[in-house]
Amino acid sequence: MNEKIARFLAERRVETPFLVVDLDVVEENYQALRAALPDAKIFYAVKANPAPQILQRLNSLGSNFDTASVVEIQDALAAGATPDCISYGNTIKKQSDIAKAHALGVDLFAFDSEAELAKIAESAPGARVFCRILTSGEGADWPLSRKFGCEPEMAFDLLVKAADMGVVPYGISFHVGSQQRDPLQWDAAIATCAKLFQDLEHRGIMLRMVNLGGGFPTRYMKDMPTPADYGQAIADSMRNHFGNRIPETIIEPGRGMVGNAGVIESEVVLISRKSASETKRWVYLDIGKFGGLAETMDEAIKYPLTFDRDLTAEGEAVVLAGPTCDSADVLYEKEEYKLPLDLAIGDRVRIGSTGAYTTTYSAVAFNGFKPLASYYI
Amino acid sequence: MNEKIARFLAERRVETPFLVVDLDVVEENYQALRAALPDAKIFYAVKANPAPQILQRLNSLGSNFDTASVVEIQDALAAGATPDCISYGNTIKKQSDIAKAHALGVDLFAFDSEAELAKIAESAPGARVFCRILTSGEGADWPLSRKFGCEPEMAFDLLVKAADMGVVPYGISFHVGSQQRDPLQWDAAIATCAKLFQDLEHRGIMLRMVNLGGGFPTRYMKDMPTPADYGQAIADSMRNHFGNRIPETIIEPGRGMVGNAGVIESEVVLISRKSASETKRWVYLDIGKFGGLAETMDEAIKYPLTFDRDLTAEGEAVVLAGPTCDSADVLYEKEEYKLPLDLAIGDRVRIGSTGAYTTTYSAVAFNGFKPLASYYI
Repeated sequence: MNEKIARFLAERRVETPFLVVDLDVVEENYQALRAALPDAKIFYAVKANPAPQILQRLNSLGSNFDTASVVEIQDALAAGATPDCISYGNTIKKQSDIAKAHALGVDLFAFDSEAELAKIAESAPGARVFCRILTSGEGADWPLSRKFGCEPEMAFDLLVKAADMGVVPYGISFHVGSQQRDPLQWDAAIATCAKLFQDLEHRGIMLRMVNLGGGFPTRYMKDMPTPADYGQAIADSMRNHFGNRIPETIIEPGRGMVGNAGVIESEVVLISRKSASETKRWVYLDIGKFGGLAETMDEAIKYPLTFDRDLTAEGEAVVLAGPTCDSADVLYEKEEYKLPLDLAIGDRVRIGSTGAYTTTYSAVAFNGFKPLASYYI
Repeated sequence: MNEKIARFLAERRVETPFLVVDLDVVEENYQALRAALPDAKIFYAVKANPAPQILQRLNSLGSNFDTASVVEIQDALAAGATPDCISYGNTIKKQSDIAKAHALGVDLFAFDSEAELAKIAESAPGARVFCRILTSGEGADWPLSRKFGCEPEMAFDLLVKAADMGVVPYGISFHVGSQQRDPLQWDAAIATCAKLFQDLEHRGIMLRMVNLGGGFPTRYMKDMPTPADYGQAIADSMRNHFGNRIPETIIEPGRGMVGNAGVIESEVVLISRKSASETKRWVYLDIGKFGGLAETMDEAIKYPLTFDRDLTAEGEAVVLAGPTCDSADVLYEKEEYKLPLDLAIGDRVRIGSTGAYTTTYSAVAFNGFKPLASYYI
């Protein structure tokens, strides 16, 4: 945890649970990604954390915005972004929402099916469209299903049709899976993009953009490759597959932009054992799966924990759980978190790298608990 | 779907997604449980759906309330309940929340550990306490972890201690797991309770109550045993194990009280295939895992689907997914939902038996989508 957040936590004893985000860390992440991928346009994935303070800071730095809904488009505009800096990157949009986005000036839309393309052509005539292709998601910590993207052959057919339908076939996008640990995972998808560019050129369609998606990881428990590692791997791959005709590129970092900028402070509500002879303690926090830590689903994301006072006793394995009356509200049971034996009820537990996918994931009122509060400093 | 809800959906074309709950069905469920378990006091599990309209209706019928937080206690009081009708059934409570509940007049508290008992003794002196014991959860559709309850030997020790600590050792509770398909699952736990009653009596401690918990199912896709079946099995079991000294009993239905009273109406946003040759369609609704259908986690709860117009084409297997940009927002992929081939974008899909565990589970703003709206008729 950095000094600025440490000072906030020490000086302000805010009621737990809450998230605090250091906007300067967001800025550092932005600059690191800029430096690592100097040729790529950055579209921040607003869904990771749509706080106005984050959007304003990123807008002031020149960031673009990848949005999932009309509300997120409005949020980006409210933060000062101009419509040409906004992509409507959700491949699943209501016709009425496409029309609203178009009326707001948004001109760049994702799709991965003929029906979606038809909706865009009808409600956003003349817009630029990019087609998302399927990838395997290998090497990613957050599961990547087949929910988004189509097979490349279908992408080819649809991009050919796009021009006839009155929209601009602009590019191809893919996503290598969130919290992607392997920089080389971009390569296969970039090769497919290059092939599609070539095949479409033979049909007289000149694509201009490759959307490299997100997937850039944040640091949780283990060290990760740096943005520079990803930048190098991607640059090499682009050169390999596109030669000296490298198109415009876009990246959509979400977790990689805000993940490590935030810390959640929570409180230990209860520590117990299930029987006198059981060695494993159960530690219950005042935040759980439904209060913002949804990404602990199947223990996918493993957050680092620290404490508000020096604990000196030996660490011993615990089960970590949330405060609701729901049996499924258990954070870590398979992953062995070893917490000090002198951890006590009332201690504050700091959950690191929680800037992304926490505030908005929070349940609106499950068990009567309030959504996660947040502070931006 | 009953006629009252069908009329509401036909006459009011409300913006989707939303939940509509028929309060008369809640009342019928209450009466059916009353009739099935005439000797048990009903404590409605507020967490299943805390809508004021539901709490008011149940209060007018004489229901008691099982609560998970101070907010739920306040909700029950606001609906007209008196504090003696309220149980604070969460075994994980902040000391300050116990004090608040006690100040509001609540006198009945759950615990399953020494630390929690100590908190209650300090902040709610003189209160009645019941100890939750572990059960296996076999036969339940919603996973029951070891999160709640302790081994019976520990329950014995703690109930002995309770009296010395200035609270009233009042009873024992257990939970057989939510959406419990097997009425006989109560028997083993009731046997354990009877043994504990006896053992504690030898130590001079006279317990007075067995809290049979919830678990009473609602009808989703398949027929379920009726409340009468559960009532009979429980009555037989109580007689078998307690003989002619049957204690006071409590039940805590949540899902069984409101599940089948509600229908969510959603809209088909997109229907697509991943390639020209793929037979499986993807059907995307405007509600998903993060918009209220959290119980589709691991496809645990399988909701029945109907449509707003007559669809006559053959049914064919689909993957059903939600509208967010999250790969994990897939509702059913393993379970083969077969939807008619003439289902079209814009059709309204009615998701049945969604009165429980939907509105409050909804994410506060994930992807910019609003929490689930709801109507009570």
